[in-house]
Amino acid sequence: MALKINLNADIGESFGKYRIGNDSELMRIIGSANIACGMHAGDPTVMHDTTLLAHQNGVSIGAHPGYNDLWGFGRRELKMRLPDIEYLVAYQIGALEAIARANGLAVTHVKPHGQLHNMAIVNDGIATAIAKAVKAVNRDLIFVGLAGSEVEKAARKLDMRFAMEGYADRTYEDDGNLTSRAQPDAVIKDPQKAVAQVVGMVQEKAIICKSGKRIPAEIHSFCVHGDEPTAVALARAVRDGLEKAGIQVVPLTEMGL
Amino acid sequence: MALKINLNADIGESFGKYRIGNDSELMRIIGSANIACGMHAGDPTVMHDTTLLAHQNGVSIGAHPGYNDLWGFGRRELKMRLPDIEYLVAYQIGALEAIARANGLAVTHVKPHGQLHNMAIVNDGIATAIAKAVKAVNRDLIFVGLAGSEVEKAARKLDMRFAMEGYADRTYEDDGNLTSRAQPDAVIKDPQKAVAQVVGMVQEKAIICKSGKRIPAEIHSFCVHGDEPTAVALARAVRDGLEKAGIQVVPLTEMGL
Amino acid sequence: MALKINLNADIGESFGKYRIGNDSELMRIIGSANIACGMHAGDPTVMHDTTLLAHQNGVSIGAHPGYNDLWGFGRRELKMRLPDIEYLVAYQIGALEAIARANGLAVTHVKPHGQLHNMAIVNDGIATAIAKAVKAVNRDLIFVGLAGSEVEKAARKLDMRFAMEGYADRTYEDDGNLTSRAQPDAVIKDPQKAVAQVVGMVQEKAIICKSGKRIPAEIHSFCVHGDEPTAVALARAVRDGLEKAGIQVVPLTEMGL
Amino acid sequence: MALKINLNADIGESFGKYRIGNDSELMRIIGSANIACGMHAGDPTVMHDTTLLAHQNGVSIGAHPGYNDLWGFGRRELKMRLPDIEYLVAYQIGALEAIARANGLAVTHVKPHGQLHNMAIVNDGIATAIAKAVKAVNRDLIFVGLAGSEVEKAARKLDMRFAMEGYADRTYEDDGNLTSRAQPDAVIKDPQKAVAQVVGMVQEKAIICKSGKRIPAEIHSFCVHGDEPTAVALARAVRDGLEKAGIQVVPLTEMGL
Repeated sequence: MALKINLNADIGESFGKYRIGNDSELMRIIGSANIACGMHAGDPTVMHDTTLLAHQNGVSIGAHPGYNDLWGFGRRELKMRLPDIEYLVAYQIGALEAIARANGLAVTHVKPHGQLHNMAIVNDGIATAIAKAVKAVNRDLIFVGLAGSEVEKAARKLDMRFAMEGYADRTYEDDGNLTSRAQPDAVIKDPQKAVAQVVGMVQEKAIICKSGKRIPAEIHSFCVHGDEPTAVALARAVRDGLEKAGIQVVPLTEMGL
Repeated sequence: MALKINLNADIGESFGKYRIGNDSELMRIIGSANIACGMHAGDPTVMHDTTLLAHQNGVSIGAHPGYNDLWGFGRRELKMRLPDIEYLVAYQIGALEAIARANGLAVTHVKPHGQLHNMAIVNDGIATAIAKAVKAVNRDLIFVGLAGSEVEKAARKLDMRFAMEGYADRTYEDDGNLTSRAQPDAVIKDPQKAVAQVVGMVQEKAIICKSGKRIPAEIHSFCVHGDEPTAVALARAVRDGLEKAGIQVVPLTEMGL
Repeated sequence: MALKINLNADIGESFGKYRIGNDSELMRIIGSANIACGMHAGDPTVMHDTTLLAHQNGVSIGAHPGYNDLWGFGRRELKMRLPDIEYLVAYQIGALEAIARANGLAVTHVKPHGQLHNMAIVNDGIATAIAKAVKAVNRDLIFVGLAGSEVEKAARKLDMRFAMEGYADRTYEDDGNLTSRAQPDAVIKDPQKAVAQVVGMVQEKAIICKSGKRIPAEIHSFCVHGDEPTAVALARAVRDGLEKAGIQVVPLTEMGL
Repeated sequence: MALKINLNADIGESFGKYRIGNDSELMRIIGSANIACGMHAGDPTVMHDTTLLAHQNGVSIGAHPGYNDLWGFGRRELKMRLPDIEYLVAYQIGALEAIARANGLAVTHVKPHGQLHNMAIVNDGIATAIAKAVKAVNRDLIFVGLAGSEVEKAARKLDMRFAMEGYADRTYEDDGNLTSRAQPDAVIKDPQKAVAQVVGMVQEKAIICKSGKRIPAEIHSFCVHGDEPTAVALARAVRDGLEKAGIQVVPLTEMGL
C-alpha cells in the first residue's frame, strides 16, 4: 500500500483590494489549505473565493485563525486573556464554516496562524485555549500543530483529532526542536535538500535531525510556503519529489486521523 | 388555546471596554435576542457572554449581522457589492453559531441590523443577498424582517422560514408602512399606547394604522429597544400588557414558523 | 519663459505586509504625491517611508485623505455626517504633517481620495466640509480638485489656494465634464493620445473636449495612475511628451498658486 | 508665591456611539487633559469635541497616543518594531494637533497611554522611540511620564521638556517605584489619604513612600482617573485638598517646564 502524506499551506490572505501570495499555484501543490478568517488577513469575499478554489483543486479546507491585527498580519505578539483567545478562535472557525457550508463545503481542520501558533507552541495556556475552542466548535475537526509542542500536548489532553506537522524548509536539532532562525543553517533553501528531508521523514517515520539523528515520529503534514516565488518553487519540488518516491499527497481528511 | 407572540431586541452591542445597552434587563422582557456579531458592534467575548445570558433567561438566540463599521455602529449607509453583502452576512452568522455551539446552544434566527436592514427593506438586491446567505448557511434559520418589505418578498421567493416583524413604538400609515420619522407622530412614547397597539395587533391579527384602519397581517414578533431607560420601561410595559391580556411571550422557535 | 505643469499621483497605499502600486517608478514621473493617511490605505510606517521617497525624488508631499474603510479601499460610498467628514479630513492631514515634519518635510497640498472625492465633486456639503478642514488646518495648503466641480466652487468660496486638476487618460464632454465610464470612449489607453491631450491643454490653456471643442481653463495638475503596468507606461509617456514639448513638470508648490 | 501643581487625566476615550468616562466632570478638576487620538480610543469627532471642552474649562490639551487596539483599549501588550512605534506616536500627535489647530487651539503635551506607557516605563527602546517622535513632531511639546522611569531617562537624553508625574491614588516603595498592584496596599481608596499624599509631595518636593521615607523629587503633575464614580470623587477631593492647602492647580504650560 502506497505511503501517504499531507502538504498544507497558508492561503487566502488577500484583503479587499490587497492581493498577496500565490494561491492558485499553491492550490495545485498542497492537499490542505489553511484559510485566513478575516482577523489577521482575509475578508468574507476572499474566504468565499478561496473555499471554492480549494474545492476545485481537491484541496481540503481548514480554518487559519489569528490575532485580530491586520496591520501586523497576525505576526506581532499580543497578550490576550485566555478566554478572549478561546472565543476569538471559535469566532473565526465558525465564520469560515458558514461561508464554506453556503458553498456546500466543510471545514475539516484548524491550524493557528503566525504569532498565535508561535505562542501556543511554548505556552500551555494558549495552546489549551485554542484546543478547547476547536473541540467545542466541532469535535470532528483535525487540529494541526507542531509535533512535540504544547499544542500537541493540549490536543492529546483533550483527546482530539490531531495532525503532527513537520517542516520541509527548516532544520531540526537533536531534541526535535526547530533550529533557531538566529542560526545560519535554520532554513533549507535548496529544494533537493527539502525533498530529501520530507521523503526521508515520511519513509522512515521519523524526524531527521541535521546531525543525522532520527527521532521516531509520524508526521502527518508538512507545511509549505507561498509568499515568494522561491518558496513556491521549493513547494513544487517537494510535491514532485514525493510523487517520484511513490508517496501520495492527500488531503488531511485522508490521513486516517 | 392561548395567543402567543414574540418580542425581540438588539443585544450584545458592547465592545471591549465599551459597555452599551441594558442587556440584563431586556433579557427578562424579550423572547428572542438579536446578538451583534462583531462587525457593527460586539466582540467574540461579548458574544460568548451574551449567548449564555440569553440561555439563562430562556431567550432564543439570533444573529444580528451588520455592516463592518464600528465607528458608525452599522447605522451609516455603505454601498457594498451584493456578493460582499452575502458573504459578510454568512460570516457573521457562522461566527455566532460557533460561539453558541461551543456553549451547547444554537442560533435559531437572523435579523439584519441598522442600515443594512433599512436598505434591505426597500432594495430587492440587498434583501435577496441577505436572504440567500441566511438560507445557504442553515435553512432552518428563521429570517426576521419588516412585514410587507422587500425583505419579506425575498424570503418568500426563497421559500424560507420568515417571521413578520412589527413595531411597538412606531405608528403605521394606511398602506402598512411605518410613518416617516420626519413626522411628529412617528414614534409612540406613551407605554400604554404601545401596549394597546401590540395587544390589538396580536388579537386582531392585523396591522393597526394610526387612522384606525386594520390591515390583515399576522405579526410574529415585535421589536423593542433598550438603548435608553425610557425604552426599557416601554418594553417592560409591553411585556406586562401582553401577559395581562393573556398573550404569552415566547421564543421565535415556538411561534410555529 | 518655459511652460510648467504638475503631474500628481496617488502614492503610499501599501498597508502593513500588503504592498500595492508602483511607487518608486511613479515618483520619478510626477511632481507631487498624494499620500494615503492610514484610513482607506497606508499606515504610519508606510507614510514615513513615502514622505522620504518623495523628498528624494524632488516630489512635493500632499495628504490624500479618504474614508476609514480599508476593506473597500475608500472606494465605497459611505454616508457620513458632514462634521464627521470635516474632522476625519483634518485628522488625516495632521497625521501626515507630523510624520513629514519629523523628517524635516512639509505637507503642501491635499487631494481627497476615491469615493470621498467622487462624492465631493457633485455634493456641495461634502465639498465644503473637506475644504473647511483643509483651510482650518493650514491655510497655505493647496487644495486639489476637479476643475469645474463642487470642490472647486467650495474652494473659491473659502478663498483658498486651489489647483485645477485635469485628466490625462479620460475624455471630456462638451460641457467640460468627464465622459461617463459607461461610455466606450471614456478612457484613453493610447499613450500618444494622452500625451496629445495633456500637451494641448497646457499649451492652449483649455480643456480639449473629445469633439475638438476648447473650453478655456488653466489646468494646474494632471492626475496619473500607477495601479497597473500600463498605467505607469502611460504616465511615463505623458512625462516624456511634456518634456519633449518643452513643458517642465514641477511640484505643485512651483505652480504659482 | 503660591505653590502650583498640575493634575492630568485621560479624556476623550469615547468612540462613535460608545460613551465612556466622566469627561465633563473631570474637566472641572484637572489642569491638563490627555486626549485619546483614535487608536486605542477616540475618533475624530470625539477629539474635536474634547479639545473644545478642554478649552472651555481652561484645561491644556495633550495627546494621549496608544496602541492601535480598540478592542483591548490599548491595555494589551503588543510587540511592535521600534520604528513602527515612533511613527505611530507621531501620527497620533499630528492628528490631534490638526483638529486642535482647526479650533484655534494647540497641543502642548504628550503622555503615552496604557500599555504603551507601561512598557516604556521599563523599556529603554520603547521609551526612546516615543520620546524621539514627540521631539521630532514639535520640540516645544512637554513630554509627561513617570518620574524615575525609562521614560524620564529617554527625555533627559534627548534634552526635552519633561513633566515628572506622580500618582495620587498609588503608594510608593522605598526605592521610588509604585507598589505592585499584586500588593493589597497598592491602591489608595481613601480620598483623604490621597489628598495628604499629594499635598505632602507638593509641599515637601519629595516622593512620600508608604514607609514614611521621603525621596527628593519635584513632581509636576499628578494623574487622576475618571473611569468610575469613586475615582471622580477622589479626584475632586484631591483638587479641593490642594486648593485648601493654598496650592494652585494649573495647566502644564504654567508649570515653568
